[in-house]
Amino acid sequence: MGSNDAVRKVHRHPERQRVDRDALYRLLDEELVGHLAMVVGGEPLIVPMAYARVADALLLHGSTGGGFALRAATEGHTVAFSVTALDGIVVARSLFDHSMNYRSAVVYGELETLGPAEEDAALIALSERLLPGRPSEVRANTRKELAATRVVRLPLADAVFKVRDAGPGEAEDDGEDHHVWAGVVPARRGWGAPVVSALTEPDAPLPPSVRRLIEVPG
Amino acid sequence: MGSNDAVRKVHRHPERQRVDRDALYRLLDEELVGHLAMVVGGEPLIVPMAYARVADALLLHGSTGGGFALRAATEGHTVAFSVTALDGIVVARSLFDHSMNYRSAVVYGELETLGPAEEDAALIALSERLLPGRPSEVRANTRKELAATRVVRLPLADAVFKVRDAGPGEAEDDGEDHHVWAGVVPARRGWGAPVVSALTEPDAPLPPSVRRLIEVPG
Repeated sequence: MGSNDAVRKVHRHPERQRVDRDALYRLLDEELVGHLAMVVGGEPLIVPMAYARVADALLLHGSTGGGFALRAATEGHTVAFSVTALDGIVVARSLFDHSMNYRSAVVYGELETLGPAEEDAALIALSERLLPGRPSEVRANTRKELAATRVVRLPLADAVFKVRDAGPGEAEDDGEDHHVWAGVVPARRGWGAPVVSALTEPDAPLPPSVRRLIEVPG
Repeated sequence: MGSNDAVRKVHRHPERQRVDRDALYRLLDEELVGHLAMVVGGEPLIVPMAYARVADALLLHGSTGGGFALRAATEGHTVAFSVTALDGIVVARSLFDHSMNYRSAVVYGELETLGPAEEDAALIALSERLLPGRPSEVRANTRKELAATRVVRLPLADAVFKVRDAGPGEAEDDGEDHHVWAGVVPARRGWGAPVVSALTEPDAPLPPSVRRLIEVPG
C-alpha cells in the first residue's frame, strides 16, 4: 500500500465513488485520451496520452512527449493515469449549485514494460481502440516500426472511479424561484466529415472503419 | 526556474510546440475540464477540475475531491495543470502512422489563494465559463456559499502548448498502396436535448443561456 492511500479516498461526495467494474470499463472504452501524471525531480509532470484497455490493464502509448515520459515513468515509480468524461452541464438556480455530470477514473500503479512479442499485439489493440476495424484494413507493423515504438502496461488493480450523474442539488434550495429553469444539458461527442489526405487516390473508397465511426450518433 | 525545466522541453516533435498565445487562450476558452497534477507524499495525485481563464491566469475550482486537492496544492509547491482537446483521428495506411490531432496545454506554477473579495468575482467567472450568460439569470452568491467555496489562481506564465493539426505522415510512406483511404476524421462536441429538473415549474421557459448553448453547432 502506498503512502498516498489516504489522499486517494474520496473526501467530498463519497457517494460519487463507485465500485462498478463494468461502468469503469465502459468509461475507459469510450474515451480516447487520458492524462499520465508522474513525479520527476520532485515535481509533477503530466502528459496527455492515447490508451487502450485490454482485460484488466491499460496499454499506454506516448503521443505527446510520451517517449520521454514513458522512459521516466518506467523506473519503478508510482504513476497516476486519469480518464475523464464530461457528460453534461448541470444548470441550477444558484451559481453555487451549477456543476458538471462526469465520470472520472484515476488509476494508480507502476508501469510495466512489454516484451517485443507483446508489443505487436499491444499496438494492434491501440489502433483497434482508436478506430475499430482499422487494423484489418492496412498492412501489418514492420519490424522497424515495432523497434521505434514503446508501449507500457498499467494494471487496473488500484483505480478510483467517481461518477456524478444527477440533476442540480435542488434539495438544498433556499427559497429559490422554481420558475427559473434548472436541469441538465447532456454532452455529446460526434465526428465531422472525413477529410481525405493528399496522396490518397481520388477513387479510393471511404473504409468501413471510418464509415462505421461517423455513422454512430455522437 | 524549477528543476523540471529540462523535462518540460518537447523532446519528440519539437515542431508541435507553439508559442501562439491566442491559440493557447482559444484552447483554454473552449474546453471545460482540465487535470491538476501535484506531488503528495512523494507520489503523483491527479484530479479533474473545472477551470476558467481570466486574463493571463486560470481560476481552478475543485469539482471532484478538489477540496482536498486544492488544500494540498496551495502550500508553495509546483503543480501542473493540463488541458487537452482531441481534434481528430488521423487515419493512415499503416497502423504506425495512425495518430490524433490535438491541442495540449500544460501549465506549471504555484497556486495562489484568492482573498474573499476576489472570490465572488472568480465564482462568477467560473459560472460564466461553464454556461455563458447564466450568472445574469440567477440570484447572486450568498455569503454562506462564498464561505463554502475555494477558488485558486494559477498564472499562465509557464505554459507548454503543443498542437498536432495535420493529415497522416505520408511523406514517410514506404511504398504504401495509395488506393487505401487515408485522412482525418474531425472530432465534434455538441449538446443534447436539455433535461428539466424535478422542481422546475412546468411552464418555466428554457433560459437564453441554455438556448444559445444548444444552438451552437457542435
